[in-house]
Amino acid sequence: MAMTGVLRPGHAQIRVLDLEEGINHYKNVLGLIETGRDKQGRVYFKAWDERDHNSVIIREADSAGIDFFAFKVADQATLDKLERDLQEYGLKTERIPAGELLETGERVRFGIPSGHQIELYWEKTDIGTPETYTNPPPWTDSAEHGIAPIRLDHCLLYGPDIEKVQEIFEKVLGFYLVEHVLMEDGKTNLAVWLSCSIKAHDIAFVRHPEPGKLHHVSFLLESWEKVLRAADIMSMNKVSIDIGPTRHGVTRGTTIYAFDPSGNRFETFCGGYQSYPDWKPVTWTWDEVGAGIFYHDRKLNEAFLSVVS
Amino acid sequence: MAMTGVLRPGHAQIRVLDLEEGINHYKNVLGLIETGRDKQGRVYFKAWDERDHNSVIIREADSAGIDFFAFKVADQATLDKLERDLQEYGLKTERIPAGELLETGERVRFGIPSGHQIELYWEKTDIGTPETYTNPPPWTDSAEHGIAPIRLDHCLLYGPDIEKVQEIFEKVLGFYLVEHVLMEDGKTNLAVWLSCSIKAHDIAFVRHPEPGKLHHVSFLLESWEKVLRAADIMSMNKVSIDIGPTRHGVTRGTTIYAFDPSGNRFETFCGGYQSYPDWKPVTWTWDEVGAGIFYHDRKLNEAFLSVVS
Amino acid sequence: MAMTGVLRPGHAQIRVLDLEEGINHYKNVLGLIETGRDKQGRVYFKAWDERDHNSVIIREADSAGIDFFAFKVADQATLDKLERDLQEYGLKTERIPAGELLETGERVRFGIPSGHQIELYWEKTDIGTPETYTNPPPWTDSAEHGIAPIRLDHCLLYGPDIEKVQEIFEKVLGFYLVEHVLMEDGKTNLAVWLSCSIKAHDIAFVRHPEPGKLHHVSFLLESWEKVLRAADIMSMNKVSIDIGPTRHGVTRGTTIYAFDPSGNRFETFCGGYQSYPDWKPVTWTWDEVGAGIFYHDRKLNEAFLSVVS
Amino acid sequence: MAMTGVLRPGHAQIRVLDLEEGINHYKNVLGLIETGRDKQGRVYFKAWDERDHNSVIIREADSAGIDFFAFKVADQATLDKLERDLQEYGLKTERIPAGELLETGERVRFGIPSGHQIELYWEKTDIGTPETYTNPPPWTDSAEHGIAPIRLDHCLLYGPDIEKVQEIFEKVLGFYLVEHVLMEDGKTNLAVWLSCSIKAHDIAFVRHPEPGKLHHVSFLLESWEKVLRAADIMSMNKVSIDIGPTRHGVTRGTTIYAFDPSGNRFETFCGGYQSYPDWKPVTWTWDEVGAGIFYHDRKLNEAFLSVVS
Repeated sequence: MAMTGVLRPGHAQIRVLDLEEGINHYKNVLGLIETGRDKQGRVYFKAWDERDHNSVIIREADSAGIDFFAFKVADQATLDKLERDLQEYGLKTERIPAGELLETGERVRFGIPSGHQIELYWEKTDIGTPETYTNPPPWTDSAEHGIAPIRLDHCLLYGPDIEKVQEIFEKVLGFYLVEHVLMEDGKTNLAVWLSCSIKAHDIAFVRHPEPGKLHHVSFLLESWEKVLRAADIMSMNKVSIDIGPTRHGVTRGTTIYAFDPSGNRFETFCGGYQSYPDWKPVTWTWDEVGAGIFYHDRKLNEAFLSVVS
Repeated sequence: MAMTGVLRPGHAQIRVLDLEEGINHYKNVLGLIETGRDKQGRVYFKAWDERDHNSVIIREADSAGIDFFAFKVADQATLDKLERDLQEYGLKTERIPAGELLETGERVRFGIPSGHQIELYWEKTDIGTPETYTNPPPWTDSAEHGIAPIRLDHCLLYGPDIEKVQEIFEKVLGFYLVEHVLMEDGKTNLAVWLSCSIKAHDIAFVRHPEPGKLHHVSFLLESWEKVLRAADIMSMNKVSIDIGPTRHGVTRGTTIYAFDPSGNRFETFCGGYQSYPDWKPVTWTWDEVGAGIFYHDRKLNEAFLSVVS
Repeated sequence: MAMTGVLRPGHAQIRVLDLEEGINHYKNVLGLIETGRDKQGRVYFKAWDERDHNSVIIREADSAGIDFFAFKVADQATLDKLERDLQEYGLKTERIPAGELLETGERVRFGIPSGHQIELYWEKTDIGTPETYTNPPPWTDSAEHGIAPIRLDHCLLYGPDIEKVQEIFEKVLGFYLVEHVLMEDGKTNLAVWLSCSIKAHDIAFVRHPEPGKLHHVSFLLESWEKVLRAADIMSMNKVSIDIGPTRHGVTRGTTIYAFDPSGNRFETFCGGYQSYPDWKPVTWTWDEVGAGIFYHDRKLNEAFLSVVS
Repeated sequence: MAMTGVLRPGHAQIRVLDLEEGINHYKNVLGLIETGRDKQGRVYFKAWDERDHNSVIIREADSAGIDFFAFKVADQATLDKLERDLQEYGLKTERIPAGELLETGERVRFGIPSGHQIELYWEKTDIGTPETYTNPPPWTDSAEHGIAPIRLDHCLLYGPDIEKVQEIFEKVLGFYLVEHVLMEDGKTNLAVWLSCSIKAHDIAFVRHPEPGKLHHVSFLLESWEKVLRAADIMSMNKVSIDIGPTRHGVTRGTTIYAFDPSGNRFETFCGGYQSYPDWKPVTWTWDEVGAGIFYHDRKLNEAFLSVVS
């Protein structure tokens, strides 16, 4: 009861073109903490305030993009039930054995119609120290190394058939629609923001002809002042900024979109209201889509709809 | 799935010694929006960003304090099931008919061992306007009238037998323990913070010999700068401040405690981390209880343990 | 001694194409306080925390732009001496009689080689109330009406011959150079920021072929959060934003550039370090001019060098 | 012209009871940068954004307190003229040879009736690097080591005969009165805030029977969020906090008062409005002195008037 089923975004595996460059970016610029490397050469990171072993995994590849995005669920029974429900819905699922990702239990992986791989799991080693759990200070030195987000927040994926995707997340996984942007016809969704909690989004999708694309992985900051600090650090490190600091109309969050050295967009995000499943979704109409995405500019920049990895 | 069962704190009914003074405080100083008055003379308020008809109800009485604190649940089936579960647990429940509170459906009320009345309900009229749901601006003029919190956040109640109370909230209502403060013996809880969501607390209890006492009702602000603004407005209106602006060790939230004109403590609160039910609770030991409650002063002020209404 | 001579930017007279539209912008969107109208039809405004009668005057005209920018000086003797010094330097000065601008004493006006009219004066009626001077609250309701800057901060003017302009401000008026941007030749200044106080700039000039142009008049905000609020209010009012919220490399200030309904650019600005005349000026080289102007984007937007009024 | 005469607070020499403890405090907790040690065993510090070699000097002694507080003046001619003016006023002055303080030119020292030693000087080595003066980033790593104030801001001194002190600062040194607090008689000043710039205070005095006492040395922070960060760091390091985070009525600044390990109070301060010498001073009456000093509590804490070093 209360918080059950799917709990939160758990990990994202991201492809980078050059591993050393990627490590430097995720560790020293974004300011995540490296927590391990595996035999495949993948490098694992967590945000300073996350307790589980990893939330971002990078691997070297010929093209940038996202391999999979995963959610932690409440327990083994939930994992088993959700797998059955996904299969009953008609999706093919696959079990990835425990340990395939460091310090992570068995995962249920399935493809969705937008062309993305989604995973569910319920076990990941808590690497919190005694100091994490007893008389903790509000923050530590790690909170000021690089941009240093609090945690992985959500991702925005681009692909076709987002009606079906929305149905899977709502009917099978228990998410609810928080906001959506309509296309010119006033009926079809251009984009949907979905939550499994009281966050304004845990995952979002934009309609796009090409399947399996990543728009951005988002990391949570504590304040608008930390958003400014993030922009400063990006500039100091010659990070390519797409847009920001600015505010989204959708979710009200404050934001910067920028690119890792391989061209994967990431977001440093703050705010967003608390939403609840009993609320009616918020609708953005086609003529106000600009304000919905970038509230101050009131228009989409060219990159928003076209640059994905 | 995901967000089910108990959703969130829904309303608090507070006793004030002088109604006009109370209305002025809640409307013009705290900056809630008055949404109605009923035949009993009760006055109803909501925060600017709440969509349901009311979250604070005040009534004139000879003594200050809280009549009841209520949670909104997902739907009728949840309400019925939780009532049965409460009865099975051994608690007496009572049905308050729909309409007894303005724009509010049937409520299930029950007493808990700490001496407080708790309510569950699932219907309250959404009074959002078209502007709330279509192309909404991030905030409106109401967000700058008085302190203007975003929403009712939680309450902290004082009373005996908090072990039993914790058990009811965890086992029957699906809450989980986020943080707790230990007494000198290193075993007994002095205080517990409980969540039904990913907020660091939706309700909290402190052990206290006298039953049914209110420590504070808490209202959410958006930023530490809004906490400063709240303190300024309190001073401009000669509101009695208990402590703050400061930070809690517990939940990391930033805070001011102050009193309404009748002596009911209220909190203007910002922050607090996102917690999840799979996390181990955070423990504050007796020697660090000062830092746990008021992180900067590192000691309790005299009022914290003694002044309740 | 200490603060002598020229004290601060005092008033700017701005041309608007439509007076009513202009009044609405400066009063309700920018959030200045209207303090008077004169027989010529000019409308006077001051910021909420300014004590003198006016700092912005608008008049209806066929073209947008700035008529003159004025500095308040310490006293009559200073005014007289500076006029003599300007004349000795070779500039023609003109005395505008007291009262020509409402509540403003005699002004000394002179043209500078960039094609702008600059004024000096020492008397403007203090319209502070008893509350301004005795036990004042830190802010009042006016501080939340519209964007509500604290004060007129500086202006940036475009025109030719900025070497001569710099010399006049430094040698005759006692300003000092705080920062400058070099052109491609590594020697010639593209832009100079000049201070008569410990502000990082009280006036600035950019080299431009056309004389007498206004790049922007700048208004001071208290915090980066107020910059966000300003951007929100601009969007709510469909104000055309040029760029921002962002940070300048030059002065480190945070900023938004936007346009009034007539196309006059204005800035809502926060921060900027405290500078002192004993410091060496900061130099921005040609290859870093982008970061100097817009620190996050690291490149000039098209409008910066071309759109002036 | 403009900024002439006395420019700014330049250095403070503070006595600590234990040098190692003091070094740790000023370097790692307050977060100043150590710039040197001299043969007498004194240790020199500067804030990260100061360019001159030092602004705080500590020396080990049997009692805490301040040895002297110094102002940088514009040039040699100013130094000579101010010395003559001080002598004409009737004060005894003393020349301390260049080099007696590291990287500091000749100083003119004089005692004032409150029992404090004040110094003037015009030379201190600029230790800015090329990066300070060419294409500088808005901040560096040093800005996040410890509390890391931007600069030495002002000091507040306690002693007798503050009328005479005020006269010296106004008539001889060119300061002006920004705010003052009246005693119960409605005429006598309890406290005066004096500026030589557009800061709301460069030095302040409180009437006190014992001469030569230090209330606090103040360090400038950039934002209210940095004030919160400072309070967090104080608590992490078990620094004794006197009061705050809070706001002053006087100057509107936000503040924390805390003590170094030897009992010298220091302030981490943000804000304060820009004041100008043509403004009438702000008066705080006796009945509102509480709000004047601590705007939120509206009363003095016990320590404010009694604990000095």
